[in-house]
Amino acid sequence: MLPTSETPARETLADLSEGEVLARIFPRLPGAAAQLLGPGDDAAVLSAPDGRYVVTTDMMIQGPDFRLAWSSPHDLGWKAAATNLSDVAAMGARPTALVVAIAAPPSTPIGVIEGIADGLRDCCEALAPGCGVVGGDLSASDALTLAVTAFGDLEGRGPVLRSGARPGDVVALAGRLGEAAQGLELLFRLAVDADGVPDAELAAALRAQHPEEVAAQLAPVPPIDRGPAAALAGATAMLDVSDGLAIDAGRLARASGVGIDFDRAALGENIERALGGGEDHGLLATFPAGTDLPDGFRALGTVTDAAGTILLDGRPHGQGGWDPYRGWDGSVR
Amino acid sequence: MLPTSETPARETLADLSEGEVLARIFPRLPGAAAQLLGPGDDAAVLSAPDGRYVVTTDMMIQGPDFRLAWSSPHDLGWKAAATNLSDVAAMGARPTALVVAIAAPPSTPIGVIEGIADGLRDCCEALAPGCGVVGGDLSASDALTLAVTAFGDLEGRGPVLRSGARPGDVVALAGRLGEAAQGLELLFRLAVDADGVPDAELAAALRAQHPEEVAAQLAPVPPIDRGPAAALAGATAMLDVSDGLAIDAGRLARASGVGIDFDRAALGENIERALGGGEDHGLLATFPAGTDLPDGFRALGTVTDAAGTILLDGRPHGQGGWDPYRGWDGSVR
Repeated sequence: MLPTSETPARETLADLSEGEVLARIFPRLPGAAAQLLGPGDDAAVLSAPDGRYVVTTDMMIQGPDFRLAWSSPHDLGWKAAATNLSDVAAMGARPTALVVAIAAPPSTPIGVIEGIADGLRDCCEALAPGCGVVGGDLSASDALTLAVTAFGDLEGRGPVLRSGARPGDVVALAGRLGEAAQGLELLFRLAVDADGVPDAELAAALRAQHPEEVAAQLAPVPPIDRGPAAALAGATAMLDVSDGLAIDAGRLARASGVGIDFDRAALGENIERALGGGEDHGLLATFPAGTDLPDGFRALGTVTDAAGTILLDGRPHGQGGWDPYRGWDGSVR
Repeated sequence: MLPTSETPARETLADLSEGEVLARIFPRLPGAAAQLLGPGDDAAVLSAPDGRYVVTTDMMIQGPDFRLAWSSPHDLGWKAAATNLSDVAAMGARPTALVVAIAAPPSTPIGVIEGIADGLRDCCEALAPGCGVVGGDLSASDALTLAVTAFGDLEGRGPVLRSGARPGDVVALAGRLGEAAQGLELLFRLAVDADGVPDAELAAALRAQHPEEVAAQLAPVPPIDRGPAAALAGATAMLDVSDGLAIDAGRLARASGVGIDFDRAALGENIERALGGGEDHGLLATFPAGTDLPDGFRALGTVTDAAGTILLDGRPHGQGGWDPYRGWDGSVR
């Protein structure tokens, strides 16, 4: 019987040489259309047809970033790919390739690594066809760790920066708000045992009950192809919403020297969740007024000239309650 | 007083926001000549003048890969850069840029991260001028972890693969053999306390006594610029010697469908150390017979037509002793 992510092969990494592990992984990984030279030499070679390439990197670590009781190996590979693809898409680029470094305890069943590879492949095939894994690295560690670097092709267009929004632009979003945070909240509330330890059976039951929220957290589906679509439609600024709409809108506003006024009605019923939820991985973009928004984008508000000010229906949100600056990272201070 | 790698700033990562940490790191990092867009957006943009780029990735983890009692933060940044630059150079490419993901415990003093940044910078400036850090990621973890992805420019040349060696070619090396392994052996023998735990004071004393061997292990100086030089001189095959000469020569031989006959005299007095030592990070290359070897390369032997056979002065080494296949990874079986 062939090992699949559902029936992880029992042999551990300690039972196999690095070469044997790679021989099990490579056939599962998607090739990249941009690949001129793939795995097996000291480095890979990729094509950059317009003489430029987009690069982003991100690391996921067991414990702080995921729990094996909640995430399947397939989920981990999928999420590691999806979050990096989203950063590439947020530049208006088409993702072309990934390199993936994995560190794992020697006791890790090879089926876990195979499941991660399957998740990487399925995510690329679903969200960025033609994008593949062109290289990687395998190391030993105590905590399962995935470091992904993703590449993209601007296809001759300029990158869509955070800094290009202009007063009067429409603020629009592709993707959902607050769902991933809701999934995480549900997991921490309902998928832990009496001692607060993540529990696989409870997580499976929760996932059956709240499939959308839990999947948004464990295996998100960011609107990757909307990045290039936004660029083609003339987006003036764009970013990946990873730390919550309020924080990320703040980043875009500060980088552009503008403000943003959100329409409360566009943010849904749970305004705190929409503004505060993390790991949405939607694309927040601004477009010149009157732009026919590309499919998948919906208007959330408008760009104002009140630099750095985030408003709701023209007013600060709450009665001294919500502070758009609270939780902002220092880079925008 | 400005914090330096010698006097690590005491504030911990837990005391600072991610943005504040980045604000401390970025000014220390070298810019890259190839950088079209640097850190601060969702992704960086790099130039690829000849429409291609070289990519390699590698992860270093506290415990399996380094010990903080032996390696200074500066050493860690240096080595993480050096080993990745070496893989780029082994393709015959000129290194252009790095992205660096760092995961560290929240209790890590910011000075440690600053020291790593200084090491990355100093290594790039010393070994690959013009190469810089264009992006990264910062996460929390229990074990300090560095994941580096490095990029290179082939400058219009074809990549030098492992598979191009031809019978009659000269086998040559830039760099040293066995010194890094000797350094590691010294550290494990003389820089541990009575319980076998790595000890910083003993390591410092050892480094004063054996500076070359210990530095070869903790902060190697691979001959990065010899990679493009070898390509220009017509190298038919090349790789980075990372797992020991015997293993890596075997990889090159198998990939090329050739054998290698080493001149025993060229390998120095300690033949086992020369053949077996890991982490040399020299460049092993083959050149057409009669090639004027580029500066820094010395001949070690010749390529034969006995596919997969590694010989010493025309004979298998030792009396049934050294098996060139022992320790090879599965990828070449």
